[in-house]
Amino acid sequence: MVKQISAQPDLDRIFAALSDPTRRALLQRLDAEDGLSVSELARPMAMSLPAVMKHLDVLEGAGLIARQKTGRTVACRLTAAPMEDAMGWLARYQRFWTESLDRLAAAVERMP
Amino acid sequence: MVKQISAQPDLDRIFAALSDPTRRALLQRLDAEDGLSVSELARPMAMSLPAVMKHLDVLEGAGLIARQKTGRTVACRLTAAPMEDAMGWLARYQRFWTESLDRLAAAVERMP
Repeated sequence: MVKQISAQPDLDRIFAALSDPTRRALLQRLDAEDGLSVSELARPMAMSLPAVMKHLDVLEGAGLIARQKTGRTVACRLTAAPMEDAMGWLARYQRFWTESLDRLAAAVERMP
Repeated sequence: MVKQISAQPDLDRIFAALSDPTRRALLQRLDAEDGLSVSELARPMAMSLPAVMKHLDVLEGAGLIARQKTGRTVACRLTAAPMEDAMGWLARYQRFWTESLDRLAAAVERMP
């Protein structure tokens, strides 16, 4: 069976992956130091290595990280596209916030 | 007991609320037409009114919408702050994408 390729980013999986504080912390660590190994990522966490690996599976499933094995080490790297997809979805509401702020500013200006 | 007030936006609930296509569709409809009633929101959806209301509960729990009752009608409005919190969290990675794009552009320029 040919795997279906969708141009639609998988926002369900991206936002679900971002909804967990441990997964956001893992992304933040990789942002600070890209290419950390799984064991380096797991070391400061207050959870077991298998638990951390499950979180990494979810991040990889959403396309937020990629894992690369070199010998015995598995390096994790951030992949930008899904974050951009999530930002892109949220960005359409920026107009809405800007309008809200404009209305607020106008209301403040009308104050006696 | 005094309710604990946290300055930290509830990113877990915000991202979890955004991880469902029905809830994103509800937000998009409110973005196009703010102040729609619950029944107006439910009408074109292929699900029961109670199912739509459960999704609205999740959106309200994440602070993404506010409901206001006037007589028999409940109007739903978008509330901007949680979207801004989510954008703010993602925006820190913009530096990372920009750097990735810069590296890509430099690599392309070095091509023979």
